[in-house]
Amino acid sequence: MAGNKIFGTVLIVGGGLIGSSLARACKAAKVSDTVIMTDSDAGVRARLQDLAICDEVAGSALEAAGKADLIILAVPPGAMGEAVSGFAQNLRPATLVSDVGSVKASIGAKITSLLPEGVDFIGGHPIAGTEQSGPDAGFADLFKNRWCILTPDDEMSPPAQNLKRFWQALGSEVAFMDSEQHDLVLATTSHLPHLIAYALVGTAMDMETVTQGEVVKYSAAGFRDFTRIAASSPIMWRDIFLENREAVLEVLGRYIEDLTALKKSIRWGDGEALLSEFTKTRNIRTQIVDAGQDSAAPNFGRDGQIETK
Amino acid sequence: MAGNKIFGTVLIVGGGLIGSSLARACKAAKVSDTVIMTDSDAGVRARLQDLAICDEVAGSALEAAGKADLIILAVPPGAMGEAVSGFAQNLRPATLVSDVGSVKASIGAKITSLLPEGVDFIGGHPIAGTEQSGPDAGFADLFKNRWCILTPDDEMSPPAQNLKRFWQALGSEVAFMDSEQHDLVLATTSHLPHLIAYALVGTAMDMETVTQGEVVKYSAAGFRDFTRIAASSPIMWRDIFLENREAVLEVLGRYIEDLTALKKSIRWGDGEALLSEFTKTRNIRTQIVDAGQDSAAPNFGRDGQIETK
Repeated sequence: MAGNKIFGTVLIVGGGLIGSSLARACKAAKVSDTVIMTDSDAGVRARLQDLAICDEVAGSALEAAGKADLIILAVPPGAMGEAVSGFAQNLRPATLVSDVGSVKASIGAKITSLLPEGVDFIGGHPIAGTEQSGPDAGFADLFKNRWCILTPDDEMSPPAQNLKRFWQALGSEVAFMDSEQHDLVLATTSHLPHLIAYALVGTAMDMETVTQGEVVKYSAAGFRDFTRIAASSPIMWRDIFLENREAVLEVLGRYIEDLTALKKSIRWGDGEALLSEFTKTRNIRTQIVDAGQDSAAPNFGRDGQIETK
Repeated sequence: MAGNKIFGTVLIVGGGLIGSSLARACKAAKVSDTVIMTDSDAGVRARLQDLAICDEVAGSALEAAGKADLIILAVPPGAMGEAVSGFAQNLRPATLVSDVGSVKASIGAKITSLLPEGVDFIGGHPIAGTEQSGPDAGFADLFKNRWCILTPDDEMSPPAQNLKRFWQALGSEVAFMDSEQHDLVLATTSHLPHLIAYALVGTAMDMETVTQGEVVKYSAAGFRDFTRIAASSPIMWRDIFLENREAVLEVLGRYIEDLTALKKSIRWGDGEALLSEFTKTRNIRTQIVDAGQDSAAPNFGRDGQIETK
């Protein structure tokens, strides 16, 4: 499907990891005649200009919005409203607005309320990323063979089908989902894992009896994987937890209950309960490997070897 | 240092991931004339025979113990006592007994109490492993450029120095540490991370509003890394939590407090507190990358791409 033009002009608002990857992917897949980028930070705009990953870097979204057939918001969830307010007055009725945020329900409602009559909004969320941030961290293949969730009101509408073809052209597998269900699923598979990783790293840093040097030295024993997750953009994650508060609090509440039950089993020396809990969780790993979401190969590549001196 | 014989005969009790890797590493580094293995499971013994990774597979530890200069216990922490009882009567006074367990204080006390006068015990813990188990999962390079912690009473004693040279010959970097400090450090860097990963996978499996299919499909968003950790040997981990109860309960208690504080920040919509917490944890990642314990490259290799159909 690569090389099929789907939108005349695509405007990407936000030049971070996702926005800059999106620009690179759009150019590589030739899904539009023109890719315009912008960012509220002048330093990022200058860097985008230097990187030359798009056809034009606009001084503001307002300035470029009138030319766009598709606008994709790639800013932190908490900055979406301000970004839309900045350009809404300059939109043509046929423009489709979408985003790449990790939270859909609250943000979708906010954006829709700010758009003029006749401008469609469809929420989007590519399940892709690394722990790195900024325009230099992006790359064209980021979305290849990754899921992209879209949350249109009407899956069969022309804008929804166009947006689906757009993401497919970038190499993604597209799934339609209800906004609320998206937020609950992602609270489980992404938001809670990030929160508990942040908490673990925080706990380790606050130990008085274990030095930070010891934590760093012996991190390969399990801790290390959490530090990678906990190195993701702090602003984005703050926004995600604030915007997806209800769903996160629900799964977090359940999680703390489960953890407290394990704590009780350890305190009571209940080996049978521990064994049964640890055995049941093995099964889901097999399913993830079977679904191609990870490799069955052991943790070779990232096994934390000490650098040879 | 490879090729330097350090012990005449090494007996490895337990043919799992660590034991079978140890046999392969001993042969590759030529640290002993003879490597004998044994396992309480007849099926594992037969498999070890077929794999031909050692010079001899003994029917029991009792049978081989009298010939050994170094005995390394590579069985789950809860099986250490029974293993030692099984061969203690057949030991020569000069024999050195060691282990590879993830808990040191309680196990060391138990093993020492079972050994006859004149037989030295020095606890050992190579910080190495994968989430896989069994004799086929082992490989000779598992300990290369990895830390191995030894917990002798006297670091300068000949047995401690010999054991240090042994692990160095297998490619490890050796650190001496007090048993209690080891248990607290590992509770932080390894035991707690595993417990919270097991709990997270359990929580996700019990959600009624999110299907297991959805969890598997969108696991690349963060969840996937936890399933790998939670796929480790259930018996070994049950034993670790039972044997290192005090230290684990201490760090787990602190962790639940920290998580509860984050929960409160989310409930109150306290973005400032969340941002400050998420920012401070970024720093430790840099230290781990600088220490060579992980790569700075983003999560490319394991980025959970959907299998191409």
